[in-house]
Amino acid sequence: MRKVAVVGVGETKFSAAQEKTSVELFAEAAMEAITESNLKPKDVQALFLGNVLGDFSEGQGMVQVFAAENIGCRNIPANRYEGACASASMAVRDAFMWVASGFYDIVLAGGVERAAAMGTALATRTFAMSSDSRYEFPSGITFPALFAMLAHLYAARYGIPIDKLKEQMATVSVQSYHYGMFNPKAHLRKEVDVEAILKSFMVSTPLQLHDCCPFSDGAAALILASERAAKKLTNRPVYITGVGQASSGPLANQQDYLPRLQAREISSQQAYNMAGVKPKDIDVCELHDCFSIASLIAAEGLGFFEYGKSGEAWMKGEAAIGGKVAINPSGGLKSKGHPIGATGAGQVYEITKQLRGEVEPERQVDGAKIGMTDTLGGDGGTLVNMVLRCGW
Amino acid sequence: MRKVAVVGVGETKFSAAQEKTSVELFAEAAMEAITESNLKPKDVQALFLGNVLGDFSEGQGMVQVFAAENIGCRNIPANRYEGACASASMAVRDAFMWVASGFYDIVLAGGVERAAAMGTALATRTFAMSSDSRYEFPSGITFPALFAMLAHLYAARYGIPIDKLKEQMATVSVQSYHYGMFNPKAHLRKEVDVEAILKSFMVSTPLQLHDCCPFSDGAAALILASERAAKKLTNRPVYITGVGQASSGPLANQQDYLPRLQAREISSQQAYNMAGVKPKDIDVCELHDCFSIASLIAAEGLGFFEYGKSGEAWMKGEAAIGGKVAINPSGGLKSKGHPIGATGAGQVYEITKQLRGEVEPERQVDGAKIGMTDTLGGDGGTLVNMVLRCGW
Repeated sequence: MRKVAVVGVGETKFSAAQEKTSVELFAEAAMEAITESNLKPKDVQALFLGNVLGDFSEGQGMVQVFAAENIGCRNIPANRYEGACASASMAVRDAFMWVASGFYDIVLAGGVERAAAMGTALATRTFAMSSDSRYEFPSGITFPALFAMLAHLYAARYGIPIDKLKEQMATVSVQSYHYGMFNPKAHLRKEVDVEAILKSFMVSTPLQLHDCCPFSDGAAALILASERAAKKLTNRPVYITGVGQASSGPLANQQDYLPRLQAREISSQQAYNMAGVKPKDIDVCELHDCFSIASLIAAEGLGFFEYGKSGEAWMKGEAAIGGKVAINPSGGLKSKGHPIGATGAGQVYEITKQLRGEVEPERQVDGAKIGMTDTLGGDGGTLVNMVLRCGW
Repeated sequence: MRKVAVVGVGETKFSAAQEKTSVELFAEAAMEAITESNLKPKDVQALFLGNVLGDFSEGQGMVQVFAAENIGCRNIPANRYEGACASASMAVRDAFMWVASGFYDIVLAGGVERAAAMGTALATRTFAMSSDSRYEFPSGITFPALFAMLAHLYAARYGIPIDKLKEQMATVSVQSYHYGMFNPKAHLRKEVDVEAILKSFMVSTPLQLHDCCPFSDGAAALILASERAAKKLTNRPVYITGVGQASSGPLANQQDYLPRLQAREISSQQAYNMAGVKPKDIDVCELHDCFSIASLIAAEGLGFFEYGKSGEAWMKGEAAIGGKVAINPSGGLKSKGHPIGATGAGQVYEITKQLRGEVEPERQVDGAKIGMTDTLGGDGGTLVNMVLRCGW
């Protein structure tokens, strides 16, 4: 298979409810990516798009074909992917394969969502459909509650008093808010301290407001190109050197494994093996912090910290810039925001910018050469991981 | 790229509303395909699944991960595709690429839908979201009306009196109903004559009840394998020798081209070129007859008949078994039925069975060596074509 590079990226600001349609919102990100790649829309051979809630948020199914036509990508194949929060990562991984195989040289991949537009309550209830509609959803459970249960399980499994875990989780959020302060594309930009977090209102014990990411509107887009095409288009290609994906059924079927998520361990191992790297080689990682507890579980599943020790690692600064691995210097889902079907592409956007050394000084991981993305769809349903590397 | 074969197929009966969940319905088709391929679920390396209305029909998003886990395909990558009626064909084309590229040897592709479960009125209104939500859907238009307008345009463009066109369209439906009579998996099984069709109630002038396909519940599944794996699993592999896909924006942007659909012409040409065949080489074709007028337009776009002459061809028996090309010997969407997100995989199921010579004698295309599928998503949004060929 051929090498595949990210040659251009684009992203809207992630935000509260805004007025653009999904088609218009995606156009903003896509045209940025196309222009940055020194390409025209007619050069794009196919579109791979993540979108989850479009049918509900604006009554638009099959949004990808209107999104393609709107930016002047006429008559190209256009696929829509739905894997809950991991939709865009699924789309990017697929786009990767169509280029790696030799079939296409230049493709557009990304995601778009108007999740904030639905309002938190409606979006939360609608999005709960990404859990198992036979065993989970009918119980009335939504994602905050599912992750709250994982937090209790995490505390019990590793013998961490719940108050200590809450402090560790708060530290995760403090770090994310801090980096997001410097990211002009972030949805929630404010400095928040541990005390404020522990005083915020309870969403689902032990998760408080600041343990939870927001629903956002937003879009992100990437141009992927074959190595040969990439060399003509840019002198700073970022290669996708490893991809992995795995799924699980309902969490209840994984009781023996929880709070670890087996799908993540399988998916990330695929990505590491394909890239020929190990967790210690990763300089910067954007991982799926839909809830603060999700960050702790993710960082362990990715092999960065020992099981049950992530919280301590965050408190010691090991997950910060200058630590063992810089986690979520974008602000993550917590601060940068979470436009469901666009989030994974936003992670690749951030890693690409980081490896190119193009982000704000306060949140730049200096000298970063290898980055990773981690996207979780549902409560464990879909896991996608990618390893990216500087190509210069 | 490597050769890719269909080594096993499975399909539920297409039907009116039934009691199984999508996960259970897909299991029925998937296990048939897996068993026919002499495989076990653990041999499947990835799942590619089409599904459109699951969020609405049963409140299940990301259905593919629960579908995979339910049949014992643990922790594999599982993608969901949404391209309206073309969703499953999109999934199959993607699965094709993951095998052709050399990444996987054995994958499961297919689709599932509970469209009948929603009821015709609700499904029609919901599914109208697959048209453009900016310019088409807000006008109140649904798919019967869109295709009715195409029928008027077809009549005007080719100078066919509307009464004559109605008789031609009725002939299309008569043929489909006739073949469907012999297909035990068909949804609507009854002999209907031209007179009955022209007396049926008016849905949207000039389209009457029998010009319109039903919404169905159903699932279809295929095992795709690399050539090497296929040779170990079966002595009757059916190779996918050509694939094509294209999209269009809203129909209003294609006024100069209509009633021809440019996306179909581009997509089918890709498939023909890749397979190295021409329309005259196709022995049997399953094409997207969501409405009788859609059959006429499709058969011309695929190059089987001259523009404006499809109706005459049907009336002369040129689209029947023994004619120029046998079209929809399954009964097509009209009789076999239309479980939206499963339809494309159902077409591949039928062509595979036809090439193997395994369908009922009354509808078997004797000696068929090369087959084609044609799936249309929305009112022109997504077109997917495939060419399949006997591998023995």
